[in-house]
This record gives sequence, structure tokens and C-alpha cells, in this order.
Amino acid sequence: MEKNKQYRLAKRPTGLPTEDVWEYVESDIPQPGDGEILLKTQFISLDPAMRGWMNPVRSYIPPVEIGDVMRAGTISEVLSSNHENFKPGMLVSGMMGVQTHGISDGKGLFPIDTTIAPAQRYLGVLGLTGMTAYFGLLEVGQLKEGDVVVVSGAAGAVGSVVGQIAKIKGCKTIGIAGGPEKCQQLIEEYRYDEAIDYKSDNIRRALHKAAPDGIDVYFDNVGGDILDTVLTKIRMRARIVICGAISQYNNTTPVQGPSNYLSLLVNRARMEGFVVFDYAKQYRQAAADMAGWMASGELKAREHIVEGIETFPDRLLMLFDGRNDGKLILKV
Amino acid sequence: MEKNKQYRLAKRPTGLPTEDVWEYVESDIPQPGDGEILLKTQFISLDPAMRGWMNPVRSYIPPVEIGDVMRAGTISEVLSSNHENFKPGMLVSGMMGVQTHGISDGKGLFPIDTTIAPAQRYLGVLGLTGMTAYFGLLEVGQLKEGDVVVVSGAAGAVGSVVGQIAKIKGCKTIGIAGGPEKCQQLIEEYRYDEAIDYKSDNIRRALHKAAPDGIDVYFDNVGGDILDTVLTKIRMRARIVICGAISQYNNTTPVQGPSNYLSLLVNRARMEGFVVFDYAKQYRQAAADMAGWMASGELKAREHIVEGIETFPDRLLMLFDGRNDGKLILKV
Repeated sequence: MEKNKQYRLAKRPTGLPTEDVWEYVESDIPQPGDGEILLKTQFISLDPAMRGWMNPVRSYIPPVEIGDVMRAGTISEVLSSNHENFKPGMLVSGMMGVQTHGISDGKGLFPIDTTIAPAQRYLGVLGLTGMTAYFGLLEVGQLKEGDVVVVSGAAGAVGSVVGQIAKIKGCKTIGIAGGPEKCQQLIEEYRYDEAIDYKSDNIRRALHKAAPDGIDVYFDNVGGDILDTVLTKIRMRARIVICGAISQYNNTTPVQGPSNYLSLLVNRARMEGFVVFDYAKQYRQAAADMAGWMASGELKAREHIVEGIETFPDRLLMLFDGRNDGKLILKV
Repeated sequence: MEKNKQYRLAKRPTGLPTEDVWEYVESDIPQPGDGEILLKTQFISLDPAMRGWMNPVRSYIPPVEIGDVMRAGTISEVLSSNHENFKPGMLVSGMMGVQTHGISDGKGLFPIDTTIAPAQRYLGVLGLTGMTAYFGLLEVGQLKEGDVVVVSGAAGAVGSVVGQIAKIKGCKTIGIAGGPEKCQQLIEEYRYDEAIDYKSDNIRRALHKAAPDGIDVYFDNVGGDILDTVLTKIRMRARIVICGAISQYNNTTPVQGPSNYLSLLVNRARMEGFVVFDYAKQYRQAAADMAGWMASGELKAREHIVEGIETFPDRLLMLFDGRNDGKLILKV
């Protein structure tokens, strides 16, 4: 008989979320109660932000508690429903977590339209990944035509979209990524004007060459030394968008603060954080823009699909050692 | 015969600007050429920013070069003039530096009106000090009525004015300063609602008590550990105004970056620097506001006047060991 397979948080990680932080549980498939829906997971989104949710700290959402199913974005199929808005066979996006089956009361579930795009894209460009790039760059970064834009994690799920939107908006784009393959991808696939390989280039020199007059917008996914180096190259009234800090998420030592932050003073510049959920009311318009750019070929999105819920612990680690190539999605 | 007495930069300081970085020079009083003015200095402004001007780095103004008269804000009397806009006996504010006499072509000199306020006030509340507080808080900090405002260096020249403007605007004000005397001054003279003594209080606990629901605006004059601690207590959409970082100016090790900067992300908050010169077009309106608040008794400014240009090297150090009590001004 089919079972519900789940990954639960067994203990809080110190550093990388290694295999031993997970408890794998098989149990009977639950039955939906009054007003409830039984869902079967098709795709699970694997995101750097998940590492933050595992820490027992005040954040923009509560931490995942020990014993809880690990939180994750999902695309699911409705198997059976006692809820008038959801019918068997419908596909919905939500946050059902790392499990094959789940029960929902419908809150936070959104039907998706697979005639426009394949289901998994609603975890990528048409989902929170794309929305993060869109609102972070355009709203927080206050992008203007002609800006010089630097993106770290530039070949990643969010970074690759940021670079392309900036290009569409008439900016010069400089991407920072690790290794020659990713840098080639930046130029050939994501249309970056310049690519910097943080593993082999001297970032300061490379930035100076690529942006001799300085940087207007820096979209930061990584933090650490790269943030600190970019701070030395910002222009007057620059905007630094703090989207993430993947270089710091698995630190067992304190987070490395940007020691060049006084560059903000000299340059009358700003560093600002954001959480994509705040823009929920504008998702529809953003998704329409994104779908349009994809249709016209201006926006390309690479999905890196891996299979098998049993492989979850190792797949998650791919995000932190750079093994993913675009938006990482676990197909159940 | 009277001589021109000057302090010139003899070498770049490492750490504190000790006596040996200065060269004291006496020379003949210069004569004004065509279109020029001879000025006699009455008051010299001593400011933390002067330390930054001594470093050989790209900044919002060029560094003071070795051999140059040290840059400083001044109030001077016109002694003789070959310039139609300036007559002997006029008092002007400017940047004539640490010297008793100087020649100017009139650029950057502004006549001051001593029927409104005593001359030295144009180096304080009605000068760049006051303008820094005003525009930093209201424009960069985007102050709103009801905000919870924290100020570091709260008894200092800028900080004491920031706290009072925030109070006038209907905010809760929390000042951080060093020692019981300064903390008493915060409450009794500058009307802060709460005072935190960074020398004896646990800042984190004291902030938690003073601002249990978090902080909306932090006006930072000091950087370092205090900035890092405040970051743990900011509220959603908080604004951190980077005005200075006096705790870091004399470092011989790298500047301490704020390791809690990811709080900006979680709280959708912003950290922004500014330079007061950018608001020059609005100085007049700001000075009118400030003069009005002083007249009504809502705004109090403490000037700490010390005498004798020969004492300059030691007086400057007062800023860095907390010996100044309000706006530090050297009377020549």
C-alpha cells in the first residue's frame, strides 16, 4: 500500500544541513476532514532560504520546529477534496513541505495554469524565485535605464533572472559566479555583458575593469567577501539589495559583516533587505511580465530537476556547494 | 608683529591623530590680491569628520594633503577686502581651516547674522552640525510621528540635536552615551525619554527594556558593537541612518562591519549613508526651523568652547575620548 513519505527536522544543524539532521518517516496516507483537501506532491522547490528556516531565531516566518515536516514550496495535485474551491485533478502551488502527501484547508494554495507553462515553472520564474528577482531588482533596487548592475550568485535561480530583467530594462549587467562553465552560461544564456569567476578572478580588479565608473545597483545573494569588495566600487546613490547571503548561511562562526559599509556614507548609498511575500498583491502583474518576456525569448530560465524524494538530503546540499545549475527542483 | 599661526598636516596618522602628525607654522600675515579677502579666524569647528579627511582615500571630498593647513569649518571676520561682496568687519562662515588668518576669493563664504544668534552658533545648530541632524533624521531617516528613535553619540553635537528634533516631531527617543553625567544630560537637557550608558549598561537588555516593540529609526554616529546590537532590535521597515562611526575612525585594524546586517533582510529594513552638503539648497529652510525651535525653547544646544589655537592638537583628541560636552568649538 502507498505510504506518505516525509522528511522531518530531527535536530538543528550546526553549519551545513547534513544527513543526520533529518528523520525520514513513512506513515499511512492521511484522509481529508471537513473542508480539507488531500494533496499529492509533484515537485518540491529547493531554496537557500530553507537553511534559514532551520535556525531557531526570529525571522520573517517562524522557524521549522524539531519534529516538523521540513517547509518547502510545492506543486501538488488534488487527490480528493472536501473543499468547494478544489477539485480532484487540479494542480496547485503551495508550501506543503518535503512530503509526498499532505492535508490542507486550502489557505495558501493557488491553482496553476499548465496551458501557459509547465507545472514546475511555477516554482521558478513564475513562482517565488521569479518574483524575488523581479521585486528585488525593480522595487527595492529602484532600477533605472542605463544603470550598471552587478549580481552575485548570477547563474543561480534568482540571479539569472535578475540579470536578464536588468538587461531587458536597458542596463549594463555584470554577473559573478563560480567556475568557467557558469561564467560561460552567464554570457551565452543569460546575456550578461560581463562575467566574473569568483573562484579564479581577482574580484576587485575584475569589477574595476567591467565597471570603471562604478556600480549603481548590486543584487546580493551571497554576502561575505564579495559584498565587501563590491562596496568599494559603488557609485553615488547606489542601491544594494540584500536578497540573501548564501556564503554565510552555514557558518559556525559569526556572520561576516561588511567592513566597508562606510562606503554607504561616502557615496550616499543604501543597503536594503526585502522579503518577497510583501509584494503578493503585485505577483499577478509581475508574472504577466515574466510570461511575456519568456514568450518573446528575452527571458530564459533553466530548471535543474532532480528526482526522488529519498534523495532530498543530498539534493539540498547541492545549493551550498554550487552543484545546481539554475532553479533546483525535486521531482517526487 | 602679529603672525599667521597655522596647523598643517605633517604626516598621516595611524590610529589617533596624535601631536606628532601636526606641524605648527608661524608666518607673515598674507595680503589679499585682486578680488581677494583677508580673514581673521574667530572660531574653529572641531568635528569627528576631520579624522576621515586625514586619510588618503577616495571620499566625498579630497583628503587633506601632507603640508596643507588642516581643513576645518570656521567663523571669520573680514579684515580687508578687494571683493565687492565682502566689507571689513563682516562675519562669515566658511572652511578656512586651522589657522588664524587666511585669504579667500569669496567662494564658500557666507555672511552670518549675529543679531539672530551668537557667531559660534553658526558652527553648531545653525551650521553643518545642525543641518546634519536635521536632514539625516528627517530626509534620510524618513521620520514619522510615533516612531521609536535611537541615537548613538546622543549627547554629542549632532546626536543631541537629533534627539530633540525627534521629540519635537512626536517620537519616542532613546539616547546612548557614555557615563552617568552624559546620561543625565540626555534626560534633563535634551529631553530624551530613555538614556542608555554604554559604559555600564548591557546595551541589548537596556534597548529591550526601552523599546520592547523594536526600533523604527536608528541614527548612528558610532558604528561598531552598538550598531551591531541595535540591528538585533529593529522593527519592520526600520531606517538606519549612517552619519558616522567614531568608534572606528582611529582603528589600526580593519573597520568592524555590522555582522547582524542580515536583520535588514528579515525586517525589510534599510541602512543608508548621507553627506550633508547634498542638502545645501534646503539649508535656509532648515535653519529657520531650528532658529524657531530655539526661540520657543524646544531646542537646546550646548556649545563647548575651548580657547587658544595653540591647544588645537589636544582639543581635537577630546572628540575621540569623550571629553567634549556638546558641540566642540575652538575660540582663536
